Amino acid sequence: MRCEIVAVGTELLLGQIVDTNSTWIAERLAALGIDCHFQTRVGDNLARIEETLRLALARADAVIVCGGLGPTQDDITRQAIANVMGVPLQRDPVLLARIEAIFHQRGRPFADINAVQADVPVGASPMATVAGTAPGLICPVGDKQVYALPGVPWEMRAMFEADVLPDLQRRRGDAATIVSHTLYCWGPGESVIAAQLAPRLQVLDAQCQLRSNPTIAFLASDFSGVRVRLTAKAADAEEARRMLEEEAREVRALLGDAVFSEGGDDPVHHLPEAVALRLLAARGKTLAVAESLTGGGIGARLTSIAGASRVFRGGIVAYADDVKFESLGVPTEPVVSEEAAAYMARGVCRVLRADVGLAATGVAGPDSQEGLPPGTVCIAVTLGDDVTTRTLNLAGRSREQVRTLTATWLFDMLRRLILDA
Amino acid sequence: MRCEIVAVGTELLLGQIVDTNSTWIAERLAALGIDCHFQTRVGDNLARIEETLRLALARADAVIVCGGLGPTQDDITRQAIANVMGVPLQRDPVLLARIEAIFHQRGRPFADINAVQADVPVGASPMATVAGTAPGLICPVGDKQVYALPGVPWEMRAMFEADVLPDLQRRRGDAATIVSHTLYCWGPGESVIAAQLAPRLQVLDAQCQLRSNPTIAFLASDFSGVRVRLTAKAADAEEARRMLEEEAREVRALLGDAVFSEGGDDPVHHLPEAVALRLLAARGKTLAVAESLTGGGIGARLTSIAGASRVFRGGIVAYADDVKFESLGVPTEPVVSEEAAAYMARGVCRVLRADVGLAATGVAGPDSQEGLPPGTVCIAVTLGDDVTTRTLNLAGRSREQVRTLTATWLFDMLRRLILDA
Repeated sequence: MRCEIVAVGTELLLGQIVDTNSTWIAERLAALGIDCHFQTRVGDNLARIEETLRLALARADAVIVCGGLGPTQDDITRQAIANVMGVPLQRDPVLLARIEAIFHQRGRPFADINAVQADVPVGASPMATVAGTAPGLICPVGDKQVYALPGVPWEMRAMFEADVLPDLQRRRGDAATIVSHTLYCWGPGESVIAAQLAPRLQVLDAQCQLRSNPTIAFLASDFSGVRVRLTAKAADAEEARRMLEEEAREVRALLGDAVFSEGGDDPVHHLPEAVALRLLAARGKTLAVAESLTGGGIGARLTSIAGASRVFRGGIVAYADDVKFESLGVPTEPVVSEEAAAYMARGVCRVLRADVGLAATGVAGPDSQEGLPPGTVCIAVTLGDDVTTRTLNLAGRSREQVRTLTATWLFDMLRRLILDA
Repeated sequence: MRCEIVAVGTELLLGQIVDTNSTWIAERLAALGIDCHFQTRVGDNLARIEETLRLALARADAVIVCGGLGPTQDDITRQAIANVMGVPLQRDPVLLARIEAIFHQRGRPFADINAVQADVPVGASPMATVAGTAPGLICPVGDKQVYALPGVPWEMRAMFEADVLPDLQRRRGDAATIVSHTLYCWGPGESVIAAQLAPRLQVLDAQCQLRSNPTIAFLASDFSGVRVRLTAKAADAEEARRMLEEEAREVRALLGDAVFSEGGDDPVHHLPEAVALRLLAARGKTLAVAESLTGGGIGARLTSIAGASRVFRGGIVAYADDVKFESLGVPTEPVVSEEAAAYMARGVCRVLRADVGLAATGVAGPDSQEGLPPGTVCIAVTLGDDVTTRTLNLAGRSREQVRTLTATWLFDMLRRLILDA
């Protein structure tokens, strides 16, 4: 079964709001194993909404259209669907009473303009779920369906779950389930990961003529590393998960310790800082950070994770050099050196009484410092009596990138050291 | 001129990432007065990318396509464009050298797979801006253009500003110049700002039949406050700027000290932290921060501004309560109180020898603390001998929102105190 998503609203085309509705619906459809090949955004223009719906209906079995069901003049999705169906709109007295009741309940006057929300294309059915004044609509077009949902996210979601999904499943009849499993990698770039996995991709491709099952996809994203996503399609979720477990074993063997987390799609759970905090919490260790070029960003990332207080005691941001000397015991210049980083990590552990210390000092740019070019960064981790240091070369990156990458390399270095300890 | 936006990536269709690129591009096009009637998202499928590009080219004068320019097997945007142009891909030796140089500069091995990023449809030109390994491409199709941009947001934005926009303006050829001037506001919400400006909007609307000139638009955005954008269209930039100056005077008179910055579209220059740093630098004052719930985020935002070292000495992140007592001299619980915030601000000024101190302590959530609900935040600013404190109620916000809003309220409080001093 194929389904397209159409988001209606001139505000989307002007870039005034981000279209999170389509993303949410897409994720729900994928979880159900319903293919979605196109998503379209179109403004509040009758001819263009009609054109978009006709094209989507020509390509897919069902179309989910979001937005344009409100009471104002630019809410014309109802009319566009009626035109595509080739039927007139008809005011539904039951719906009208329902809308009037909602206004009454909220203690708001019912302006006549709101009555248009009770208009339904002849042959379409209002959805049962009431989640606002605008009713959702199920609109048959030949043997295909247009599902019209309001643009308000919580109203849309409620109707999608209660009315659209069951209807789609009923119409589909079959029950293929798609499940994904992601391996989160840090260290090697996307091309190295791709080269490492090339033999496995060849095996998978050889096993099938069209699309392999499971599939392997790469997502290289802004500074969270490379995600390798395995997706399996099977009769039920259990079988899909079994296929994924087997495939993950193959992939893990090829990628080694570049994989720092794996599992489902919870984005927070798989952040490098969340992984580091979990490893420390499991060992009952506390953490402190000494920051220079990152200015507090390492601590900010750690404390973005709820429950960080079990591990994280705090930090010292030593941006000025004399703060490094006075508060952290760095003895002398150069302050961008592995030695300075080691003093900083040890110093913050001592001052804030933590078991484990992280430190970063370097040149964020745009200017050079101590004769070193932007992107030169020294990091250090203390674990017990040991200090491990490393110099990163992040040349060619912007100031923000240097700072973000510094924190991630530090979290990853901590992870590897804990696991090796 | 009409332009369509196409975002490429199966991860978009699976709902794994939100398509913020299209939103950003749409906003930039709207500011230039370029119409955008459709935005489409399509997966990593050659036939469907081609179909989408052909349809978009049939409807618009130019198409901006984002994503699918990476080095892996699913990066097929280059091939799709070549097919639409009816030409082969050809490896560009200059580009290849450039890509190899980027790998060399970053100290990373160059895998052969990366060479495909130097493939260019015959007749297309790589963009001048280098913002990553994937080059942007300007691809003529008849008298229309396809602009191919990478999906990584910062790379995409750099190329859009430096290469796509000037090319679009040149091709549009129309003599009118559009110039914008934005007033950045913090404090009152969008509806309050709209109400304050209503009389002025009425005057402007009364002066014209269609679209007023200048126009006033509101952009309420993610925690950077409300931006009031004035846009003027005139024969030359000088005339447009004169209109904007006059209009800005009217608008400023209505909004008062809610306006914390104004000018062009440089997003960094108008950040509340940049404004605060400029005010301090002009007065030769140094700054230190004491953070609890923000975990370093206030310092991180200050040091995201190049040149912060002229003002910012550093900070103490006192996440654990005893760090607040020992390192900052907070005498006793409760630690979420205006009194504790005042001690923190004074303490960090003393320890790090700064003129001005900022402090924030509060409940980021999800759990309550000291009987206070998430979103309860106490902030303090010391300027000379004075300490000013305030309690924010950010209930109903997520952990990250509470932390971000805390920093912004603090920067804005500092701004108002400096200007009143």
